[in-house]
Amino acid sequence: MQSKSILVIGLGSMGFGMAGSLLRAGHKVYGADIDAQKVRDLGAKGGLSVEDLGDARVDILVSVVLNAAQTETVLFGAPDYAARLAEGGVILSCATVPPAFACDMEAKAQAKGLLYLDAPISGGAIKAAAGQLSIMASGSEAAFEAAAPALEAMAETVHRLGDAAGPGSAMKATNQLLAGVHIAAMGEALAFGLTQGLTVDRIIEVISQSAGTSWMFENRAPHVRDADYTPRSAINIWPKDLGIVSEIADSADLDVPITAAALELYRRAAEAGLGLQDDAAITKIYAAQAGLKLPGDA
Amino acid sequence: MQSKSILVIGLGSMGFGMAGSLLRAGHKVYGADIDAQKVRDLGAKGGLSVEDLGDARVDILVSVVLNAAQTETVLFGAPDYAARLAEGGVILSCATVPPAFACDMEAKAQAKGLLYLDAPISGGAIKAAAGQLSIMASGSEAAFEAAAPALEAMAETVHRLGDAAGPGSAMKATNQLLAGVHIAAMGEALAFGLTQGLTVDRIIEVISQSAGTSWMFENRAPHVRDADYTPRSAINIWPKDLGIVSEIADSADLDVPITAAALELYRRAAEAGLGLQDDAAITKIYAAQAGLKLPGDA
Repeated sequence: MQSKSILVIGLGSMGFGMAGSLLRAGHKVYGADIDAQKVRDLGAKGGLSVEDLGDARVDILVSVVLNAAQTETVLFGAPDYAARLAEGGVILSCATVPPAFACDMEAKAQAKGLLYLDAPISGGAIKAAAGQLSIMASGSEAAFEAAAPALEAMAETVHRLGDAAGPGSAMKATNQLLAGVHIAAMGEALAFGLTQGLTVDRIIEVISQSAGTSWMFENRAPHVRDADYTPRSAINIWPKDLGIVSEIADSADLDVPITAAALELYRRAAEAGLGLQDDAAITKIYAAQAGLKLPGDA
Repeated sequence: MQSKSILVIGLGSMGFGMAGSLLRAGHKVYGADIDAQKVRDLGAKGGLSVEDLGDARVDILVSVVLNAAQTETVLFGAPDYAARLAEGGVILSCATVPPAFACDMEAKAQAKGLLYLDAPISGGAIKAAAGQLSIMASGSEAAFEAAAPALEAMAETVHRLGDAAGPGSAMKATNQLLAGVHIAAMGEALAFGLTQGLTVDRIIEVISQSAGTSWMFENRAPHVRDADYTPRSAINIWPKDLGIVSEIADSADLDVPITAAALELYRRAAEAGLGLQDDAAITKIYAAQAGLKLPGDA
């Protein structure tokens, strides 16, 4: 495979791991982040800074920022990183954004002679670092072809969902709806069981073998059992992602009462100062309301 | 193993299958149901009617009725089936009921010199017929011992959750909270994806490999894809079971907003005439509200 020149924008827990996967695959990787230390950390792994690029142009741009506003800014706003792409180069946009926004970005890219792949990612920081992400992608044949070297290095699974931007972001939002609701439901169920004298340990043991289980239950409930709220994925993700789901649903005139109930809980958790804790900490909102003790509580 | 004499009360989709499993294991099985045809159907499989019992007494009574009120009636009300048990015989109570109610029933049984096992079941009609149920059970050592021949014939997994009635029902309610919420969330997510141009087929394919998946999503979403609402488990189960969850939570001063949102949807579905359809039909409530077409719609 040919070595490509790739610019990764946003070296947070996901982007840094993805940049590492691209380096391991033999690509020339430039990094950009508002935190200069992140760029130096990438340097220690063999990466370069966007400033090292000079007047040269990259083949591929991977944007791994937080949301739609940041995506638009880094691509086409003041930093204008899209201008660092060679003609015919491709943008992989990985943030969770509304499908209509992804279509806008695709149009803007096309107007500049660039390709665009709507490519939200799933899997967490560990899979990002291992090059084993799941990517829900849509875009033109040409965009997929140009993005292939980066996709191959970063992803275990690429779901190819359509020939234009939109469906990738739509599927990601659908996944986030379920994932966010399931984590909150886990908190509700653990608190419920505790009021009846069950232990978190026992609930995990039985539910993970029963029809009430979910991927999120099995992944997150052990964090509550172990009183370990080190953020693998933080509470703060959810007011944002379920907010996007909620906006999309509103604009489609669809009521989403279960999402709305979960969103309200995450907002309360963020207001209560739990925003930077692991999202399993949603259970603390229930425990506080009902006066329950969770594992680790004095 | 010694052949026991067992009375099964309630020969619906679960009870009939359980009675069949008991017969296959070599027990002498008597059946009781308000629908005489069910008892005749059991006769065709080698079972007997409770009327054939005469003055004889059974060793084990398995109650598989709908709810707490029916449980109390069949055991200690007009039919007084508890009186058909030999002294020291055991009642297995399988309905989903509040834990406090299960404790009451245990006390009533003990006052009559009978043993009581709080033994809610999970797994559906197919597993009931195959003797592969999951049973969330609690009760005295003596109750477990006396119930063992029946448990062995009916269950693949017996979760032993405590030495008195209560924890069995508590764990079942915890499971129902999650299962009921996950089915409703599945409906919400499918409808959400449809508004964005995704197909049910594609959503199932991607979500079942993603962090948003749940046991219920993987089990029920195909019913929507296939437009097959033959009730494996009906909408009508959920106003009842989430109603129990809601009451228990109320009495423990725990707010359960996600359960409340799901319960409201199931009540609307029942009011809309969907009560006897498969619970995947909750998706129709969303589709109707937002004017979406589901697979199979004209």
